[in-house]
Amino acid sequence: MRCRHVKPDDWQAGYRGRRGMVCAARSAITDAAGNMIATYAGKVKQAPALCTGSHIDTMASGGWFDGVLRVLAGIEVVRTLRENNLQLNHPIQVIVFSDEEITMIGCQAIAGTVLQQSPERYQPKVGDSSQTCLEMVGGNWEKLATAKCDRSDIAAFVELHVEQGAVLESTSKDIGVVLGVVGMRRQLITITGQANHAGTTPMSMRPYALVAAAQVVLAVRNIALRMPSQPVATVGYLEVSPNAVNIIPGKVELSVDIRDLSQACLDEMVKQLSQEVQAIATDTNTQIALAPQLCVEPTLAAQKVQTTIKSVCEQLGLSYCQLPSRAGHDALEMGRITDMGMIFVPSQAGVSHSESEYTSPQQCTQGVNVLLQTLMELDQLYPV
Amino acid sequence: MRCRHVKPDDWQAGYRGRRGMVCAARSAITDAAGNMIATYAGKVKQAPALCTGSHIDTMASGGWFDGVLRVLAGIEVVRTLRENNLQLNHPIQVIVFSDEEITMIGCQAIAGTVLQQSPERYQPKVGDSSQTCLEMVGGNWEKLATAKCDRSDIAAFVELHVEQGAVLESTSKDIGVVLGVVGMRRQLITITGQANHAGTTPMSMRPYALVAAAQVVLAVRNIALRMPSQPVATVGYLEVSPNAVNIIPGKVELSVDIRDLSQACLDEMVKQLSQEVQAIATDTNTQIALAPQLCVEPTLAAQKVQTTIKSVCEQLGLSYCQLPSRAGHDALEMGRITDMGMIFVPSQAGVSHSESEYTSPQQCTQGVNVLLQTLMELDQLYPV
Repeated sequence: MRCRHVKPDDWQAGYRGRRGMVCAARSAITDAAGNMIATYAGKVKQAPALCTGSHIDTMASGGWFDGVLRVLAGIEVVRTLRENNLQLNHPIQVIVFSDEEITMIGCQAIAGTVLQQSPERYQPKVGDSSQTCLEMVGGNWEKLATAKCDRSDIAAFVELHVEQGAVLESTSKDIGVVLGVVGMRRQLITITGQANHAGTTPMSMRPYALVAAAQVVLAVRNIALRMPSQPVATVGYLEVSPNAVNIIPGKVELSVDIRDLSQACLDEMVKQLSQEVQAIATDTNTQIALAPQLCVEPTLAAQKVQTTIKSVCEQLGLSYCQLPSRAGHDALEMGRITDMGMIFVPSQAGVSHSESEYTSPQQCTQGVNVLLQTLMELDQLYPV
Repeated sequence: MRCRHVKPDDWQAGYRGRRGMVCAARSAITDAAGNMIATYAGKVKQAPALCTGSHIDTMASGGWFDGVLRVLAGIEVVRTLRENNLQLNHPIQVIVFSDEEITMIGCQAIAGTVLQQSPERYQPKVGDSSQTCLEMVGGNWEKLATAKCDRSDIAAFVELHVEQGAVLESTSKDIGVVLGVVGMRRQLITITGQANHAGTTPMSMRPYALVAAAQVVLAVRNIALRMPSQPVATVGYLEVSPNAVNIIPGKVELSVDIRDLSQACLDEMVKQLSQEVQAIATDTNTQIALAPQLCVEPTLAAQKVQTTIKSVCEQLGLSYCQLPSRAGHDALEMGRITDMGMIFVPSQAGVSHSESEYTSPQQCTQGVNVLLQTLMELDQLYPV
């Protein structure tokens, strides 16, 4: 039994209609967080669900695969089971999580980690309030707590996703078996020196914010390279003020984004960053302030799910490697309340969040087949 | 004989009226470059002029002292000579140069270095054409060449200016004896890496434009610190693209501004920059392009004028030090056709191009007295 090719036409069908999903499954609901949950009933009533799914929202400049592949994969798995008159012991739930790209309100509501006291956290930058947006997709801000699931509701959550990186392509692997979804620490660093005339101020009289910023950029990279777990650390945003050819910069603002599977590693990196930044401030005669912007703890994939995915790959004759997911996913939050696993398929040239992102039909089909077989094996492994 | 205090009221008078200058001097003209030149005749007809003066245009956010002090100083010197019924052998010319802050068209026209084939070089960013602007102040674009002076027209040019830096204040000196006006080299550096997801791209797979830019910023500083002549080198402008917290920067554009009194030092620094930049490109797996933006050769102050200024300071009991002018001045161009010297007075906290720039009335008066005595001594030193 194999899944069919996932084609653009399927994407259209999947995107257009909850009704389509309802037809493919036994029943579907929209919860208070705007998540659409379609259930394909299992043989054992009251058994916890095996869940899969993802989001259909996309970045403004995003492509066809990020998120959408996973939703279609879940629908395809259920279709394939039905076409083969197969019913598992556990029910299968295909979840379309709401707003993964920006707020992750959908998966956070299911995991019970949504910050209901902070509606501004979920507020779009422009347009309607988070409450209004939720109502537009059938949700209800006041009843968000009702979306929460317990461990007893879900046996495991398995997510198929495009890698959004170039590890699989560069190592010529068919499948990535995800070790976990990394945690994040984000800091905003503000460096204050003294703007002055670029000609008349001797080098020895310069509290030079941009020299300090350059040292911070290199320190961030070096801290990451020193850690054995191969975390990533990035300065992606940097603004210079006043930013004129003939004026020594007086102020620089920059972001630091750190990601790793280990909470201890993340904390150690932030500690080292803080120490190095203070040394740089002294060395450059500048003031440097660090302001935490984001703190997300990592979620490890369950060993049982990882082992099953690897075993399925071997059965299907697909090559694989193990790697962390360094992008955030709905699985990050789902892993807080249930056993979680993720299956990666290659992204051409590692490109993502771009209209040019691409994964071939063959690679998509391989991924969906791994998802199907994994869910079938987990059905045997988890008690009902 | 001492000059009076230069007060804000004098500034008003000096600014308002060419007529006022005409009255204070024997004759005044406006040349084709819009320079106003007032002449106080000397005893010897046909003797070359001893020139002083500056500009009265200012930066948008500039203060009262940059440029204007020098014009008032020249007028005050002539007034003082007339009040004391003194006439030198050489005529004294007080020049109000047009547009020093942006194009330096006035002093370039007198020095014969104006680029008449490139009117866009003198074009304001907004508003009328350079030709129209010239006409508004009594000049004539087509006749710019007539503004050029020969060596035989001018015996020497002495300019009084606020330091626009903090060397005099920090060393508690009354007067700066300027060694020369530095030359400049400006480069625009474009670094191209690969924008990518800050999470999913391992550190080893990053052609990271911002890391390369950080190395360039530090290299620029280190090149300056290595040179014995104490040049200055600044990265003042730096733009990151796409400049988002969670995206590895794919492109960085930055400016390098290098200034020194020695042409050989400037050329050596540009050579070292080019070599280091290529090494950085290799090290960071980026492409780095350098594009020259500006090349201005330095002008040294004449030894005869420097020695005279120092001698005058000693006679007047004023402390002094020798230092380069690292800002551009009309004297930069005037030094290309005649003996040039500059007298600096302190800038409070080194602040310039700011409404808060300040030099005390006492400091201004000391400077004008040094200018007066210097012109009187040079009158004896230069042949008529």
